[in-house]
Amino acid sequence: MDHSRLIGKDTTLCISLAARPSNIGTRFHNYLYNELDLDFLYKAFTTTDLAAAIGGVKALGIRGCSVSMPFKEECIQYLDVMHPSASAIASVNTIVNEDGELHAYNTDYQAVVNLLQENAVDTGLSYAVAGSGGMAKAVVAALHDSGFTNGTVIARNAAAGRALAEQYGASWAQSLTTPAQLLVNATPIGMEGGPESTARPFTENAIDAAEVVFDVVAKPSNTPLVLAALQRSKVVITGAEVIALQAAEQFDLYTGVRPTPDQISRASAYSRQA
Amino acid sequence: MDHSRLIGKDTTLCISLAARPSNIGTRFHNYLYNELDLDFLYKAFTTTDLAAAIGGVKALGIRGCSVSMPFKEECIQYLDVMHPSASAIASVNTIVNEDGELHAYNTDYQAVVNLLQENAVDTGLSYAVAGSGGMAKAVVAALHDSGFTNGTVIARNAAAGRALAEQYGASWAQSLTTPAQLLVNATPIGMEGGPESTARPFTENAIDAAEVVFDVVAKPSNTPLVLAALQRSKVVITGAEVIALQAAEQFDLYTGVRPTPDQISRASAYSRQA
Repeated sequence: MDHSRLIGKDTTLCISLAARPSNIGTRFHNYLYNELDLDFLYKAFTTTDLAAAIGGVKALGIRGCSVSMPFKEECIQYLDVMHPSASAIASVNTIVNEDGELHAYNTDYQAVVNLLQENAVDTGLSYAVAGSGGMAKAVVAALHDSGFTNGTVIARNAAAGRALAEQYGASWAQSLTTPAQLLVNATPIGMEGGPESTARPFTENAIDAAEVVFDVVAKPSNTPLVLAALQRSKVVITGAEVIALQAAEQFDLYTGVRPTPDQISRASAYSRQA
Repeated sequence: MDHSRLIGKDTTLCISLAARPSNIGTRFHNYLYNELDLDFLYKAFTTTDLAAAIGGVKALGIRGCSVSMPFKEECIQYLDVMHPSASAIASVNTIVNEDGELHAYNTDYQAVVNLLQENAVDTGLSYAVAGSGGMAKAVVAALHDSGFTNGTVIARNAAAGRALAEQYGASWAQSLTTPAQLLVNATPIGMEGGPESTARPFTENAIDAAEVVFDVVAKPSNTPLVLAALQRSKVVITGAEVIALQAAEQFDLYTGVRPTPDQISRASAYSRQA
């Protein structure tokens, strides 16, 4: 644990803010700082005072701040410039401090678009997205912009669910009643350490009826939903893939350096060993 | 520069705030974290918004914050609990975050007391202290509490200089006109990177007339004042000694671990190699 030779007053700090921080981002970014010999440092934080935490990012000259649940929407009021990826969905997962001006982006959106393309998911599929929070917004917007037209937002929160569905021409339902060919979980259900870590957001029947299952929960990568889909030999896209791709976008925004696919892949594998 | 194996979400961060950060504190603390195998990390920062920076310390759960010029007095309004070392002189150089409650200390005061004792400086000596800021307050209080009774505060700022002198039964003067046996520099004169880096706060005649010369400027350790005193074979106490002793006190407050004199000595030597 030899920090002493590594860090100086000019080392650039990037952080993350989440209610339940994991080590994934910290390990991902620091792995690549090391690989690319950048004098940067990354560390996850939590807070109970988001306004003061973001004020601190600005006042301390912290270069980047990744934003996770439940702060992706609440943080907007404290930021200076909203870029289209964030303003289109009113959800921020990436803050870049440009000389005291806080710029907002959403790299989840781009990561979901890229994964739908890489996996050649047919845009004619009907979809059901569970969730209505910041991540669900990124997913529904990405589906819409990728050409998917036949979708349902499944959300317990009727107001948020309806608003999200209407914005992108989807339906809203309190629970999934008709089968969908593409199932997407954009809720914390299945997340390690959360209150519903052993649950699935969709029934076995719904999974049986689907062709593609996409979970945005990043830890564990094999959530109960992902496991059930793998057992049924469905096409599966995991939150581990989302978090690695969106982190690579963040890395580029923070450092100006674009890691190669191979570097992203190795950093992702390393980040999950914790 | 392998940060990746070192830092996790549970690593405790300590920082410093100064108008002109040096690498000394960063290297001192990180050296000892490594030596003592503590999962801590230290990095120097500067800010132009002290209120927001200290709000960030609290909101991000940053454990410790060392405070240097020009923030030692201004910071007080943002802190929760003043401990006697800081409240006696209304000057703070150390903030400890106890579960969101910010506690204020002044470890410079104790370091100066200890160095006067270690060097067996005769309390009968007349003294002249140049300066009226936070560090000057710590020095004059330490002299007073160590038993020195015959002193002058030399300060361009008449109001601050008079107030400090009166509080501790000393005189005030705009410049040194009568010789003093113990000369103390508590101004930034002679500090590397500052506007008066090549200047001395006392004349050659004043140094000739003194027995002991004490400079609180830590970088370089051989300031123009220290060099002039060494050439004249005076007893010399340097800012390098002050900064190491006060940092050791801070280290104890932040981590609960007291480094040994040998560890302090090695960390101090290491911290100055930057």
